[in-house]
Amino acid sequence: MLTLYHAPMSANSRRVWITLLEKGLEFELVEMQLGSEQFQQPEFLALNPFHHIPVLLDDGFRIIESLAILDYLEAKYPIPAMLPSDAKDLAIVRMVQMVSVNELLPAIQPLSFKMMGIASDSEKIEQALQQVNKVLTLFESLLSDSPYFGSQHLTFAEVVAGTLILWLPRMGDVALDDYPKLNAWSDRLTQRQSWQMTHPSPEEFEATKLRLQARMGV
Amino acid sequence: MLTLYHAPMSANSRRVWITLLEKGLEFELVEMQLGSEQFQQPEFLALNPFHHIPVLLDDGFRIIESLAILDYLEAKYPIPAMLPSDAKDLAIVRMVQMVSVNELLPAIQPLSFKMMGIASDSEKIEQALQQVNKVLTLFESLLSDSPYFGSQHLTFAEVVAGTLILWLPRMGDVALDDYPKLNAWSDRLTQRQSWQMTHPSPEEFEATKLRLQARMGV
Repeated sequence: MLTLYHAPMSANSRRVWITLLEKGLEFELVEMQLGSEQFQQPEFLALNPFHHIPVLLDDGFRIIESLAILDYLEAKYPIPAMLPSDAKDLAIVRMVQMVSVNELLPAIQPLSFKMMGIASDSEKIEQALQQVNKVLTLFESLLSDSPYFGSQHLTFAEVVAGTLILWLPRMGDVALDDYPKLNAWSDRLTQRQSWQMTHPSPEEFEATKLRLQARMGV
Repeated sequence: MLTLYHAPMSANSRRVWITLLEKGLEFELVEMQLGSEQFQQPEFLALNPFHHIPVLLDDGFRIIESLAILDYLEAKYPIPAMLPSDAKDLAIVRMVQMVSVNELLPAIQPLSFKMMGIASDSEKIEQALQQVNKVLTLFESLLSDSPYFGSQHLTFAEVVAGTLILWLPRMGDVALDDYPKLNAWSDRLTQRQSWQMTHPSPEEFEATKLRLQARMGV
């Protein structure tokens, strides 16, 4: 039995959730409330001493770190394949994964705070937008004429980049229209059942917003 | 032809350098001076708009992000294999890679500043040490009775974790002796030619120290 510890508003755990759905696996979800005491409980710390989600259990075998979990699922449940085998195509997928995590995610943080009604200083927002546009420019060129990064099929590049980029239009100030290939790619993702099933509900969004505002003293 | 843009004191680019050596590949090195204007030059920004090293060129094909480069090299030059094929063993390697990057590296930063003669506040150092010990405890259990993480042979777990952990004894305050399996593992790594060939020279260490002190106004 596969068990995923997750939170609906966590882009990191959504990567795994989408992958489980795309691979057609049976699993159960354990929902964690972000910022809650659940993360400090001994049973959870035994699973992940760094108190993060996602955590995946597969018949008692525990995996932490979302990117590690994705690669485990690919090796254990290889069909449908979510990584290309050609070295250059794989390099494109891995670049998109790592640039999403290391360059895009930190830049998205001030923008998501703004979306959540928390004031951010305008210089930080400006720098974040520049960085986001730098990432999107690179991704537009890496996407080239493929429907998906380095592949004719959905890969972990979509799972990692897509769960971040799809928030951008909602954050304002970033026009995906300026990146026509990415824009069409983004439409392809939102049409997938795995995307629709894992999209946070308006209630989950509002609850997270209120919790974050309370934490930030807004 | 393979070309690696690197810096001798960068643990991130050393991951790739060691992999190129372990795979017995021919390559040329382009040395970058950390914090220098080299990273702002148009020729370099065309390779990596985020002005980081490492960058690898393989006959004109450009790859950024060290973990993406490692996976490219494994796919393109699969012998000797540096990733296990079994799903659980692969999960162990990937967990060690990602925990090294996301948990160990940030904790090592204040310790390395101290090693470089830059004062750090004692609370930060204490928190960093707690985090480092948490990582080492997890790694000691994941290493189990294997000579290498999830493998009888060197993998990317060693390449990523080993280039960080081997600095710890030099940073003081962390005794690898408390982790007997990791300690023996660490000895196995330092005996390898790839480790010895890529170890920064005392001159490189001193030059980096002075540059960092100047930048931090010490």
